[in-house]
Amino acid sequence: MEETYHKQTEIIHIEDGSVGSPNGFKTGGQNIGLRTGRPDMGWIYSEVPASAAGVYTTNVFQAAPLQVTQAGIAKEKKLQAILVNTVSANSCTGEQGIDNAFMTRKWMAEHLGISDHLVGVASTGVIGMQLPMDKMEHGITGIALDAPEAPFEEAILTTDTKPKHLAVQFEIDGKKVTIGGACKGSGMIHPNMATMLGFVTTDAAVEPDALSLALKSVVNQTFNRITVDGDTSTNDMVLLLANGQAENHQLNEQHPEWQTFLNGLEHVCQGLAKFIAGDGEGATKLIEVQVSGAKDDHSAEIISKSIIGSSLVKTAVFGSDANWGRVICAMGYSGEHFDTNKVSMALGDFVLFKDGMPVDFNEEQAKAYLDGDSVVIKTKLGEGFGKAVAWGCDLTYNYVKINASYRS
Amino acid sequence: MEETYHKQTEIIHIEDGSVGSPNGFKTGGQNIGLRTGRPDMGWIYSEVPASAAGVYTTNVFQAAPLQVTQAGIAKEKKLQAILVNTVSANSCTGEQGIDNAFMTRKWMAEHLGISDHLVGVASTGVIGMQLPMDKMEHGITGIALDAPEAPFEEAILTTDTKPKHLAVQFEIDGKKVTIGGACKGSGMIHPNMATMLGFVTTDAAVEPDALSLALKSVVNQTFNRITVDGDTSTNDMVLLLANGQAENHQLNEQHPEWQTFLNGLEHVCQGLAKFIAGDGEGATKLIEVQVSGAKDDHSAEIISKSIIGSSLVKTAVFGSDANWGRVICAMGYSGEHFDTNKVSMALGDFVLFKDGMPVDFNEEQAKAYLDGDSVVIKTKLGEGFGKAVAWGCDLTYNYVKINASYRS
Repeated sequence: MEETYHKQTEIIHIEDGSVGSPNGFKTGGQNIGLRTGRPDMGWIYSEVPASAAGVYTTNVFQAAPLQVTQAGIAKEKKLQAILVNTVSANSCTGEQGIDNAFMTRKWMAEHLGISDHLVGVASTGVIGMQLPMDKMEHGITGIALDAPEAPFEEAILTTDTKPKHLAVQFEIDGKKVTIGGACKGSGMIHPNMATMLGFVTTDAAVEPDALSLALKSVVNQTFNRITVDGDTSTNDMVLLLANGQAENHQLNEQHPEWQTFLNGLEHVCQGLAKFIAGDGEGATKLIEVQVSGAKDDHSAEIISKSIIGSSLVKTAVFGSDANWGRVICAMGYSGEHFDTNKVSMALGDFVLFKDGMPVDFNEEQAKAYLDGDSVVIKTKLGEGFGKAVAWGCDLTYNYVKINASYRS
Repeated sequence: MEETYHKQTEIIHIEDGSVGSPNGFKTGGQNIGLRTGRPDMGWIYSEVPASAAGVYTTNVFQAAPLQVTQAGIAKEKKLQAILVNTVSANSCTGEQGIDNAFMTRKWMAEHLGISDHLVGVASTGVIGMQLPMDKMEHGITGIALDAPEAPFEEAILTTDTKPKHLAVQFEIDGKKVTIGGACKGSGMIHPNMATMLGFVTTDAAVEPDALSLALKSVVNQTFNRITVDGDTSTNDMVLLLANGQAENHQLNEQHPEWQTFLNGLEHVCQGLAKFIAGDGEGATKLIEVQVSGAKDDHSAEIISKSIIGSSLVKTAVFGSDANWGRVICAMGYSGEHFDTNKVSMALGDFVLFKDGMPVDFNEEQAKAYLDGDSVVIKTKLGEGFGKAVAWGCDLTYNYVKINASYRS
């Protein structure tokens, strides 16, 4: 296992790490006949019940598995296993959808010999389609914890072009703590949980209430800062399991190394969020928008989301066009008020706009910069110390192609 | 001049009508060397000073011509002429941009022999580019009111694929009143005035304050209900001139036929707004979203805008995919709360979703319907009597093509 060191935070990246990296977790995926030639169901299992926290879509239509998982966590603030299926989102499926989600949860619990409420369920795929229950039952009873057919992170993908996972290690109470994560989602990604499933595991011991606060806070800075197309799905969910196998003193906000845990969690969630943004449907480039000098952080967040959500900014980046006007424009219609004469903007190190006016810049160099895989748009206001970062991707022909023909 | 009658409203459409249709207006366009092979500057002239009202972009960055035009109208609530240039938007151009806008206004006023403040100026094109003043001066002094080179509505276009104009006639006080309109704008179109210029003229006599109220109210129901890509530009403006040549008793809210005037104005503005939505950049289809049964009209408006603004809905319509899930999803993340079990949805006459659940429908027939030029998405909630309509277009390969290479 290769390790690279980030001295400042003392966070170590685990090469090829994922949700299976922390102690006491087994994960995997398999094909249960929902689609051809690739795994279509994934699972996570902890050897002991783990503190559990979730963040769920803000969409008024909330898919059945989210309702069932929330009900389960509410019971004891714990989960021991998670089951994820693709193809059917089990959303807008009425009472039958709810019954089916409960039934798959039950099958999984029976297969693992644990209580029903310790199983979380997640679905991604087409809305309005009932779960194929025969295949689900057969698939679940075929799960072999120690002999997975495929990695978890591959089994949960839909239009994603690549698996998204990472893990980090750091010390708490002198014990080695690991946090791992995997996620899926490329279209319909937008702040406030879009068609995105995120799963984070850790062997840290964490009090459930503190875990829930930590997840909400970190998701707000990471998963909720990415956008692909502005649509927020009915199925988005991020689940975090902490099984305590690292044997640290149980963490909460009073623990002296609480911030270390938060940093590690943010590291994992930010990494996953950026993977999703960079793998947006049809995307060729990851865009990072940095806003500083805003009235406050909230104002900066609104402005950053306005820029990253602009179809015109996204198409300009796709075309490697240093079209600062569109960035300025998106700042201007964000709904935030500010002195336009104090606004500056740069693409990477190329300043294009300073104190409310365009400045001369080398178009060729700017274009060469925009031709890269990763583009940083920096904007600065003259209002205060508020800052924010948001991530997204370019808008391309392939986005249209993928989404004009997804269902059929 | 052919006329078609709409009995219910007694509003007569004037074939090929435009801003030049009402009595006492002269309009035209010409090439002043800003671009090759097509007219690039347009003008409207009223034989007498007209009551004037304007609605302006909500973007914090407001282009110089908007500031200058507002200042002019503020003086006497009147305009007698409007000058529109393409290619340079005269936005983010600092003090020099303001000076230049004042100077072009002055040249136009001198050429027409009227006061400066009676000239409105509008610009559309690239942000950050100063007006080419030599060409502007030469162009303005070459304006021949009675011998225009080109129609006004052609001279103001940018990425539009066709001119957009109409005019209607109806009676007030037994006098024939005409309202004409022309507009441009296809990308960056979104509620709250996007890169869109709208010009409406009428020979009705209307008190300036009433005119202003009428325009604000009607724009909110029409131009502010269309979206192409969610971006709101720095240059959007709708101007309305009423020169009184119809010789009706001056209209205000107390006039018994005030509503007739409002209906006529809405007719023109809705027509122009739909032209813009249907001619969105790269668009192949006009989409109309109807929401009913919402808690109130405001709630319905928010839901309608959420649907029409969804990139996933727009690409599904492009691909003729009866993907009701995306419509439901966009309703769900609108921010409005409602009982999901009382939601129904139809594409034209094809009901796809009823009381919170999908219903069987004939995919082939739905696809055939979606293959048309015009698609109506109907959604119904069970909350109250609120309703709203919004218009937009599909999201296509050509949208990406146009916007990935606009500036270069």
